[in-house]
Amino acid sequence: MVDAVIVGTMALDSIETPFGKAEGVLGGSATYASYAASFFCRPGIVAVVGEDFPQDALQILGKRNISLDGLKKEKNAKTFRWQGSYEYDMNEAKTLKTELNVLASFKPDLPAEYRDARFIFLGNIDPQLQLDVLSQIRSPNLVIADTMNFWIEHKREKVKEVIKKIDVLLLNDGEARELFEMPNLSRAGKSALGMGPRAVIIKKGEHGALLFTRAAHFSAPSYPLENVVDPTGCGDCFGGGLTGFLAKTDDVSEWNVRKAMIYGSAIASHNAEGFGLEVLKKISIVDVERRFNEFKSIREF
Amino acid sequence: MVDAVIVGTMALDSIETPFGKAEGVLGGSATYASYAASFFCRPGIVAVVGEDFPQDALQILGKRNISLDGLKKEKNAKTFRWQGSYEYDMNEAKTLKTELNVLASFKPDLPAEYRDARFIFLGNIDPQLQLDVLSQIRSPNLVIADTMNFWIEHKREKVKEVIKKIDVLLLNDGEARELFEMPNLSRAGKSALGMGPRAVIIKKGEHGALLFTRAAHFSAPSYPLENVVDPTGCGDCFGGGLTGFLAKTDDVSEWNVRKAMIYGSAIASHNAEGFGLEVLKKISIVDVERRFNEFKSIREF
Repeated sequence: MVDAVIVGTMALDSIETPFGKAEGVLGGSATYASYAASFFCRPGIVAVVGEDFPQDALQILGKRNISLDGLKKEKNAKTFRWQGSYEYDMNEAKTLKTELNVLASFKPDLPAEYRDARFIFLGNIDPQLQLDVLSQIRSPNLVIADTMNFWIEHKREKVKEVIKKIDVLLLNDGEARELFEMPNLSRAGKSALGMGPRAVIIKKGEHGALLFTRAAHFSAPSYPLENVVDPTGCGDCFGGGLTGFLAKTDDVSEWNVRKAMIYGSAIASHNAEGFGLEVLKKISIVDVERRFNEFKSIREF
Repeated sequence: MVDAVIVGTMALDSIETPFGKAEGVLGGSATYASYAASFFCRPGIVAVVGEDFPQDALQILGKRNISLDGLKKEKNAKTFRWQGSYEYDMNEAKTLKTELNVLASFKPDLPAEYRDARFIFLGNIDPQLQLDVLSQIRSPNLVIADTMNFWIEHKREKVKEVIKKIDVLLLNDGEARELFEMPNLSRAGKSALGMGPRAVIIKKGEHGALLFTRAAHFSAPSYPLENVVDPTGCGDCFGGGLTGFLAKTDDVSEWNVRKAMIYGSAIASHNAEGFGLEVLKKISIVDVERRFNEFKSIREF
């Protein structure tokens, strides 16, 4: 039995930032999100990799008590690869190259034990695959979906179809402005709520995150990082951490979603301090709790 | 006796936003800052206007219990004028035209009753004028200074001279990055602290504001405005409200500065909902307190 089902990409990333570079490191939305969720619960991954996927990467995830039963390994095929770089301000990744490889023909087929999961995180991947996964879940308690500008630009209607079927929508500020065609984030948030979700979370990177529900508004601060080494995966860590905490506590009240956002932010802020899973592999729940408490002192008045 | 001395510009502004335009409205950093401060205390203005300055504008300020004894009226000269516009995202003003007029030859000479003021707000104006004012204050308890990209670009060394002599530095995120030549705001904040001030406040517009001290960090949320009509003067309202609240409470502890930032944000958020002083003229301290409490609910977790 898994506590949360997480669909997304598993990738080999090549990243260049003003502070260094990393070649072929373990990445992808499902990787980051499941790792972050595993601080709180047992997540199950739905993803696909190729023959070239390193065995030790799977061991890293397996050791975290992450179920890999939903991971498909394609023979004679290559893993999804992403190459990106960041400018000096570290705000947005510039995609230099994408090789879909195994992703191009992926058809998710969930293991029986996943189908009864109550918490679902539809990580950043083709919205059609998000729908395919969702259709196989029997009776979810909470469905959280992330998206990305690429899908908004290329599969806008499909993204909207996903939004209509979920409980919590995650997207970043630029994407919210783009999808709803309005520069004002409060209005974009309300527009998103109008499509069905009970909550919309707008991720703003170094400026924190905003939660919009019909009844309330919450502004999560960001952590004042002095050394952002590589922001890749921070959005996925935020979503995975959020999902993992909600699954662990089995409480989907607005109040608990606020806490979950801070836990997601705490993990994401650690993640930005190194390449790939470098930092997350070194920290424990104690570090996450410590940062959670720092977040409290940052916003108190 | 005045509680706080506020130096800055008094202007006639012509503003165009995607939601309307206003011609020759009362503006300027001293106007907005003193109006905001007057919700809490009796501020005294140090500024200069020309013969063309409308009498009713002075009445508006006088009725707020703002001292105009430090206001110089130049005969045969024109008031400072600023013309600006905002794009659809409302993030940054584009200056279309500046007529310095009376400002070009302004030499502040403070009335006796101002010289013993304990709270000083050096609003956005030529840093040499900020220094001139500061040199006439006998023993201030707290000196807060604002600045602007124009002065950072044209009088960088003079801006640094001001920073060395003050207690609290206010600047916006773009200006912090420009002045300290680093994209990371936490590092820019630390650099600023290294120059002398005991606190640095980075204003981020729709993303709130950050406070950096040697011992702590505070992130003030922003108010989720759905109708930003004209952001002109919001930074000045923030600084003036902050100064006014600190002067009223006569408490310069970090904890009270946090509260003061929220009061400044509350007034600034009201100000953005209309042109010129349009909205501030209609609201009372009750509205400001109500918004202060909303800020509490926005950041609670």
